[in-house]
Amino acid sequence: MNGAESLLRTAAAAGIRVCFANPGTTELPMVAALDGDSGIRPILCLFEGVCSGAADGYARMSGDPAMTLLHLGPGFANGIANFHNARRARSAIFNVIGDHASWHLASDPPLASDIESLARPVSGWLRSADPRGPLGRDAAEAIAAARSGTIATLIAPHDAQLVEGAVVESVEEPHPAPRASSAAVEASARLLTRAGKGALLLGGEGLSERGLRAAARVAAATGCTLWCDTFPARLERGGDLPHVERVPYFPEGAIELFAGFSTVVIAGTRSPVSFFGYPGVPGELIGERTETATLALPEEDVGSALEDLADAIGGGETRSAPVAPSERVQRPTGPLTPESVAAAIAGLQPEGAIVMDEGLTSARAYFATAANAPRYSYLTLTGGAIGQGLPCATGASLACPDRPVIALQADGSGMYTLQALWTQAREGLDVTTVILSNRGYQILAIELARTGIVEPGPGCRSLTDFDPVPDWTQLARGFGVPAVAVEDAEGLWRELERAFAESGPHLIEVPL
Amino acid sequence: MNGAESLLRTAAAAGIRVCFANPGTTELPMVAALDGDSGIRPILCLFEGVCSGAADGYARMSGDPAMTLLHLGPGFANGIANFHNARRARSAIFNVIGDHASWHLASDPPLASDIESLARPVSGWLRSADPRGPLGRDAAEAIAAARSGTIATLIAPHDAQLVEGAVVESVEEPHPAPRASSAAVEASARLLTRAGKGALLLGGEGLSERGLRAAARVAAATGCTLWCDTFPARLERGGDLPHVERVPYFPEGAIELFAGFSTVVIAGTRSPVSFFGYPGVPGELIGERTETATLALPEEDVGSALEDLADAIGGGETRSAPVAPSERVQRPTGPLTPESVAAAIAGLQPEGAIVMDEGLTSARAYFATAANAPRYSYLTLTGGAIGQGLPCATGASLACPDRPVIALQADGSGMYTLQALWTQAREGLDVTTVILSNRGYQILAIELARTGIVEPGPGCRSLTDFDPVPDWTQLARGFGVPAVAVEDAEGLWRELERAFAESGPHLIEVPL
Repeated sequence: MNGAESLLRTAAAAGIRVCFANPGTTELPMVAALDGDSGIRPILCLFEGVCSGAADGYARMSGDPAMTLLHLGPGFANGIANFHNARRARSAIFNVIGDHASWHLASDPPLASDIESLARPVSGWLRSADPRGPLGRDAAEAIAAARSGTIATLIAPHDAQLVEGAVVESVEEPHPAPRASSAAVEASARLLTRAGKGALLLGGEGLSERGLRAAARVAAATGCTLWCDTFPARLERGGDLPHVERVPYFPEGAIELFAGFSTVVIAGTRSPVSFFGYPGVPGELIGERTETATLALPEEDVGSALEDLADAIGGGETRSAPVAPSERVQRPTGPLTPESVAAAIAGLQPEGAIVMDEGLTSARAYFATAANAPRYSYLTLTGGAIGQGLPCATGASLACPDRPVIALQADGSGMYTLQALWTQAREGLDVTTVILSNRGYQILAIELARTGIVEPGPGCRSLTDFDPVPDWTQLARGFGVPAVAVEDAEGLWRELERAFAESGPHLIEVPL
Repeated sequence: MNGAESLLRTAAAAGIRVCFANPGTTELPMVAALDGDSGIRPILCLFEGVCSGAADGYARMSGDPAMTLLHLGPGFANGIANFHNARRARSAIFNVIGDHASWHLASDPPLASDIESLARPVSGWLRSADPRGPLGRDAAEAIAAARSGTIATLIAPHDAQLVEGAVVESVEEPHPAPRASSAAVEASARLLTRAGKGALLLGGEGLSERGLRAAARVAAATGCTLWCDTFPARLERGGDLPHVERVPYFPEGAIELFAGFSTVVIAGTRSPVSFFGYPGVPGELIGERTETATLALPEEDVGSALEDLADAIGGGETRSAPVAPSERVQRPTGPLTPESVAAAIAGLQPEGAIVMDEGLTSARAYFATAANAPRYSYLTLTGGAIGQGLPCATGASLACPDRPVIALQADGSGMYTLQALWTQAREGLDVTTVILSNRGYQILAIELARTGIVEPGPGCRSLTDFDPVPDWTQLARGFGVPAVAVEDAEGLWRELERAFAESGPHLIEVPL
């Protein structure tokens, strides 16, 4: 068994099942090892940004680490933007990058570069393997690190992959997340039971079913309201789950929101900050007149902390009453607007759906409209690096092949990694992509307007408007995904019904 | 005038005319400044890998520095692969990355990351600007650095862009490249006039018209043969220019080639090394029994050095006789093969064309076939980071709007940055893209075969074969580029004639 084989078998023994891959010559021993009975299925992507975004979606939905195999510095670099999002989502990812044979690196061949410098900003664990191996042991340590919610990147020289006599290594069992302190529970209980308006701000595991049910007990007992990060990695929603609201995106709205609370308890996330810094507007969104306490850090056992808090306060269990399908939303008619599009999707989305929302400005109505949809998982763009939606939906579908996936996709962001559609076609994934096509970078136009440029000149407009208008139906068909454009809400309803009834990928272009 | 305006006006005063851009909120003051009479035209790309590849092509063809405007760490990261190629091409590029306002960065907002760590591997000059400015002075220093053939990256905090009272700074005049030493000229002359077979290996400015004509005088006087890098950044070819041959790609062939020479003189490049390291095969391609001398380093004045060498040896001027159009190639008929495709393109390419060759395995016949084409510029994938062809062709066309551009594009590599087609459509660029569609990563299959895996199993095949087969005509039309697929050499000839006769972009898919 050579180093590459031992690496793969170590990963397989630790429960890794798929590898999102775009390998090259320096990864050939890994490619050859994937041909055997390694227990790991390679998933080819036509661009590394698809690999990294798919790994993120897979990790968010499976709970297991996702694996990638990427080619040298430039191949890894193509994946960095979506690794950035995965880092912000605390997704568990194990990256393997092939490197030149160690004896060749000093010659500075054309594809050589400083891979560590490229990988460090997104990697919580990073190692250049010893060219003599053993790669299996490096893999075991990397996977153990990834399981704590980080990106572990292993740079594997070509010669290390070829070392013979390697063995399968065992991967340390995952450590349970550390328990939040009883002092934190007591301080949080004190704050929320005090007079005045309280809020409980949730992130991470606080947005799992367990976390939400415990949070609802706290809310029922104290009258506090439940909030979550503006961009949660994964939020369980719908059915009889308690509602949480997202913190507003623009800082002015968020600051006003938190100014209305005398106390805020934070669980599974950090004290919220503005996405961008605007002159004259504070970056910290909770003002000094609001008292805050941190119940549990993202890396702590947030679910248990919320249950401890509910027990301390004495909150009993509550459940939202599920809403009958006929009452969920009014079936939309007429022109396509963010509201009618939201109503069509929320009205039809099947039980157990996974909704990946990179709809940005055009999807603003969806979150509120879909509050009463049947149970679903809601994923968002955690790190702001656009081009995450189509890949993340692809990976989520591979993690949960029995659940329908819906990608709400802004057109500008979708352009970044549209090659994901090909992997959806090849793997026959049950992903319905709804392109919210406003033919431009609308968020940039909004930000320009905020600075006072309401009527931008031709230079600005050339940077925000898409002219010529891309035709997403042709792009999707070019990758093998059936596609249609709709003209009104009735058409969207009809095409969504068809897409949800058929297996395999579909794309619906919605001009807005 | 604020910092952003002073930066742009400083760049405009230094001769920068276009800016390949994909900006976001942290670059808004730059966007607003591009709206004024800055003298710089923004060129929107739908993905940053298109910006960086286009900047490379622009710099290679214009001789002026190219400029980009990119959004934070992830936006820059999307451009790294093509910056890697540009670095290997010694292209002059001035990057501006907006960063968060300095006072906001400590809050670690979602889009924050270590931009310097990402930028360092591809940047010969790198600076995080002082948030108090002056940005114009930083820009002046960056542009001066870029002019020496490097990538200069300026990280400009949002507050630095907004500082008022800024001024236009003057950019230092470019230093002439240092002259090669007379000792180097004498040593080279001694080697090439000695008995035995000699070779002159050229790169960089050695492949300009001036360098080639001087090299031809050396060859005529000494009998040495002329060679160039396997992947030259820019090679002038055709017409009455002297022929040079490319060093073979695989090390076995290159080592055999150089073993046949007793002396090799190197001008404008480095001693050649294998693209990848293969066990048991040397990485250095020139063996110890061949004596070498370096006439001029890439950063030295290679053209003058070659002229000095020709003078020292006493070589008179020579010119290849141009070949009549009717004799250039035989008009191909029948099935589409690398040979018939090469004959059709070489037979029809217009005078003054720019040929960007990212055809990889399928374009192997083109270089020899097109030796007698009318004068053209030949660009290749310098750094091995695939996805460079379509963007580089786009930038080359913007630099030379009066010259037809031909992109010989492998399908697997083309997938990486296909969004470049949209910028070609928007700007109405005269680019004819020929997709050499072998429906897979053929180079990987060849490399597998070299390791003995001639009949790969399903795991390997899933990583090398494209199934479903992407339809490039639909993809191109989706971006607004007229496209057609051809079935035989006659069809290709007909469609090339049509594309060369019409202005604007065209795409021809050639199944192989």
